[in-house]
Amino acid sequence: MDPINQRIGDMLARIRATKPLIHHITNLVVMNDTANVTLHVGGLPVMAHDAGEVAEMVAHAGALVLNVGTLSPDWIESMLIAGRRANELQTPVVLDPVGAGATQLRTRTNLELLHSLRIAVVRGNGGEIGALSGEGGEVKGVESVAGPEDPLTAARRLAQTYHTVVALTGARDIITDGERVLTVNNGHIWLTTLTGTGCMATTMVAAFAAVERDYLLAAAGGLAMFGLAAELAAEKAYGPASFKVALFDQIYNLTPEQVAAGARVVEGG
Amino acid sequence: MDPINQRIGDMLARIRATKPLIHHITNLVVMNDTANVTLHVGGLPVMAHDAGEVAEMVAHAGALVLNVGTLSPDWIESMLIAGRRANELQTPVVLDPVGAGATQLRTRTNLELLHSLRIAVVRGNGGEIGALSGEGGEVKGVESVAGPEDPLTAARRLAQTYHTVVALTGARDIITDGERVLTVNNGHIWLTTLTGTGCMATTMVAAFAAVERDYLLAAAGGLAMFGLAAELAAEKAYGPASFKVALFDQIYNLTPEQVAAGARVVEGG
Amino acid sequence: MDPINQRIGDMLARIRATKPLIHHITNLVVMNDTANVTLHVGGLPVMAHDAGEVAEMVAHAGALVLNVGTLSPDWIESMLIAGRRANELQTPVVLDPVGAGATQLRTRTNLELLHSLRIAVVRGNGGEIGALSGEGGEVKGVESVAGPEDPLTAARRLAQTYHTVVALTGARDIITDGERVLTVNNGHIWLTTLTGTGCMATTMVAAFAAVERDYLLAAAGGLAMFGLAAELAAEKAYGPASFKVALFDQIYNLTPEQVAAGARVVEGG
Repeated sequence: MDPINQRIGDMLARIRATKPLIHHITNLVVMNDTANVTLHVGGLPVMAHDAGEVAEMVAHAGALVLNVGTLSPDWIESMLIAGRRANELQTPVVLDPVGAGATQLRTRTNLELLHSLRIAVVRGNGGEIGALSGEGGEVKGVESVAGPEDPLTAARRLAQTYHTVVALTGARDIITDGERVLTVNNGHIWLTTLTGTGCMATTMVAAFAAVERDYLLAAAGGLAMFGLAAELAAEKAYGPASFKVALFDQIYNLTPEQVAAGARVVEGG
Repeated sequence: MDPINQRIGDMLARIRATKPLIHHITNLVVMNDTANVTLHVGGLPVMAHDAGEVAEMVAHAGALVLNVGTLSPDWIESMLIAGRRANELQTPVVLDPVGAGATQLRTRTNLELLHSLRIAVVRGNGGEIGALSGEGGEVKGVESVAGPEDPLTAARRLAQTYHTVVALTGARDIITDGERVLTVNNGHIWLTTLTGTGCMATTMVAAFAAVERDYLLAAAGGLAMFGLAAELAAEKAYGPASFKVALFDQIYNLTPEQVAAGARVVEGG
Repeated sequence: MDPINQRIGDMLARIRATKPLIHHITNLVVMNDTANVTLHVGGLPVMAHDAGEVAEMVAHAGALVLNVGTLSPDWIESMLIAGRRANELQTPVVLDPVGAGATQLRTRTNLELLHSLRIAVVRGNGGEIGALSGEGGEVKGVESVAGPEDPLTAARRLAQTYHTVVALTGARDIITDGERVLTVNNGHIWLTTLTGTGCMATTMVAAFAAVERDYLLAAAGGLAMFGLAAELAAEKAYGPASFKVALFDQIYNLTPEQVAAGARVVEGG
């Protein structure tokens, strides 16, 4: 078996064995879904956003998710407090720049988080990564209606500027730390018919980052497993809602061995 | 085929072709559901409530939903900012007066929004429309426990007072601009067993209003399609949750032709 | 039939007949789920958190749920306002101390609510009840990773200190008013794979407390019915999400007779 696949399977086994706490400061739309995805993959979710408790909460976490989908100033302040504490403790911070490029507030806030914190992984769609990298792309609401002309260049530039891993998800997922590149070919078109699948993918990446210090590989693992679950769920889908039920069931049911066998991750862009 | 039905089918085709952005400032209970309904009918959802971005966000939208289900003062301020910008751009604003009549804050806020903004459609239950029109009715929490004695008169009066279209939903949906009246006979009793179905209906109306300037007809179209999806979903329901899965699947799967064939809209009250 | 079981069935019949309003001030993760559970068991849900309306809203309620899952200072203030009004009206207040023990803010806030208000029932997991009673236990995020050594002693002590009923849920549910003890043996392991099942259980307890002044018995009734629904739902589950659909369907479909026949409640710890 491919060593990458074997390592991805091993990561899932570690998640199931250690049940890392994934602290989310995330948007109001997807909280229930991402809490469930965290549980189903094998972690423990907590959603906590008050400035008075986030530093204490994140101290127990295996990873911190910052997701700006429904932003307001007090939540940004809490993201910075939690992110700084996570950085002190070397706990990985995963950023989901929902809607970057759609409004100035969203673009500015994401750049501020990238400047102020050490981010382990940025997981966004083509439009969002394009907007943050300055390589073009268009975001309408929270949807990428046009990615950057050259997605890999956009991802690589953003990764180099902020010394982070960038995971640009779409029909193919491109992941880079600015030098190394991995491509994930798992996934299914049904994912585009549901709200919050990008946020769910980010949560998967965070769960894997909680147990694997090579964040490039962790991001690939989380996205490969999520895409594989979608492929299997598609067989039971009559529409987006029955797909969602099957997707969540699959995330729970997939074993490390199945993920190692089914992940389609290749080196290069 | 009836010209009204044909026009409703055409509207759905336009939603699918143009994917209008539906900007929601809505309640915390239904955000995930209404985002999904927006996607499944063919639009793009965005939930954004911060005063610092709503004017910019709504400028890209095909319609704005204001839903007061879980109200607080800062959100009301954002609703006014977004609504004024939408009015300037002639983007339709759809109001869902959740729980009007249940507390003074809710009644007062809805009247303030109706006074301050040009509202394209108000979509509410009998109790809510009764409370806002002054024609009686009773709301317990967010549920209509008693509608006004004469629903059509209540709807007509509210429509005339605020120069808007009023869609009063229930076993039959009554829609009026104060003069013209349409009745929608689609729907299913299962809709009363689920939370947020009123809010989902409002989102459907907003998606149709984004592509049709005759808001009376747009409201009828959104409600007819929603009710038709419920009728088909009922065949697969073992309870409210399996009904919900089937309802969402149906909204996604219904074609313009099926909606044109299945809509039961008649002129008059 | 056992008189306890008969009384539990009768309570459900009263919920269905009177449709009590259950006012929730609850967390952002579970609002949609607990609103649906309220409807399915037979009540009317309302979620309202603004200080400007909670006193007026709770005046129409049959029970008030205070759930601290995603806490912030303004919501705590609203919980106190609503709770005091509920106490004046002798409307039962049910507290869900989500994550007590995980951060100082959560522990302190729950103790403040217990000191300031007359709480009818506290429904928590072993770690939460352990933390509030001072009898030990560990909470990671919102999950009990270790209960107190002697759960019954912890529950009893907390009940005695605050003159309340404590419902400590787990593989077996222990309920005590400090003297009397009931044990509920209904439930299913699938409940641990889903987010918000504790919060749903709390909502069930609140619906039963709205129609039964013996809060010890009301708590047992709500938990027995919830556990019974889970047992039946497990037969249709392929994973956590299909289990959830079946669970909600079952809560709606269970009759008073079925609940009276299936509840497994015994006196003693």
